[in-house]
Amino acid sequence: MNDTAKTGSQTSWLDQVKWNSEGLVPVITQDFQSRRVLTHAWLNREALALAVQEGRAIYWSRSRNKLWRKGEESGHIQKLHGVFLDCDGDTISYLVEQLGGIACHTGRESCFYRRLEDGNWQTVDPVLKDPTIIYAGGKATH
Amino acid sequence: MNDTAKTGSQTSWLDQVKWNSEGLVPVITQDFQSRRVLTHAWLNREALALAVQEGRAIYWSRSRNKLWRKGEESGHIQKLHGVFLDCDGDTISYLVEQLGGIACHTGRESCFYRRLEDGNWQTVDPVLKDPTIIYAGGKATH
Repeated sequence: MNDTAKTGSQTSWLDQVKWNSEGLVPVITQDFQSRRVLTHAWLNREALALAVQEGRAIYWSRSRNKLWRKGEESGHIQKLHGVFLDCDGDTISYLVEQLGGIACHTGRESCFYRRLEDGNWQTVDPVLKDPTIIYAGGKATH
Repeated sequence: MNDTAKTGSQTSWLDQVKWNSEGLVPVITQDFQSRRVLTHAWLNREALALAVQEGRAIYWSRSRNKLWRKGEESGHIQKLHGVFLDCDGDTISYLVEQLGGIACHTGRESCFYRRLEDGNWQTVDPVLKDPTIIYAGGKATH
């Protein structure tokens, strides 16, 4: 994973991804050891190319309409250990090492911290760190 | 998970899901033991309500524009062990027991069988069963 990822003959793997009409595909991010799903996000071509080039998870933020280098505000960078493509070519998955052990902007390990139990969404994960501390001096946007 | 899931006061958990403009949300499906990600698919409100009611993975097929009871053609039903909602309320994850050990219509365990290696998507999983046998007499649509 080096800067040849952006050069001519090395970009065909990016062409094999079936970007949607907005130029995006969803990406599932898992912890590389526990395999817990940490986040569901989106990628454009540039985000995926840069993630592979830089060896860290980079996404496309649909709400902010810009590249999102995970951890740029929180310090909770995700080191990239693997990139996978699904059978239809329209979904990516990342295997990552989550620095700080916190992927969610709420201060939890994973964004999927609510489990359906008896017809209610129950919070089943603790807040590991207060988000106001994580994002001190910054905006809480993961 | 019974038929009260569809009755009045029991549906508020469905209202807490932030369905997109098409009435859909993405769903990540993982094996409940290995935590391997098997598929990425979509849900509408009916699919999610029925999945919980019936205790099996049910999706909304965007290509066929109809409910998709996973395994209805292949026999590879996914028993539902858990349903999770993410922090933004706009993505679901399923924990399932994959009957037959095959989630992908290509006859592989997971749809994410291609890994990026040296600028190429390499197939890293074997075909466990020939899809023409899996779907004998039916159409290969998972």
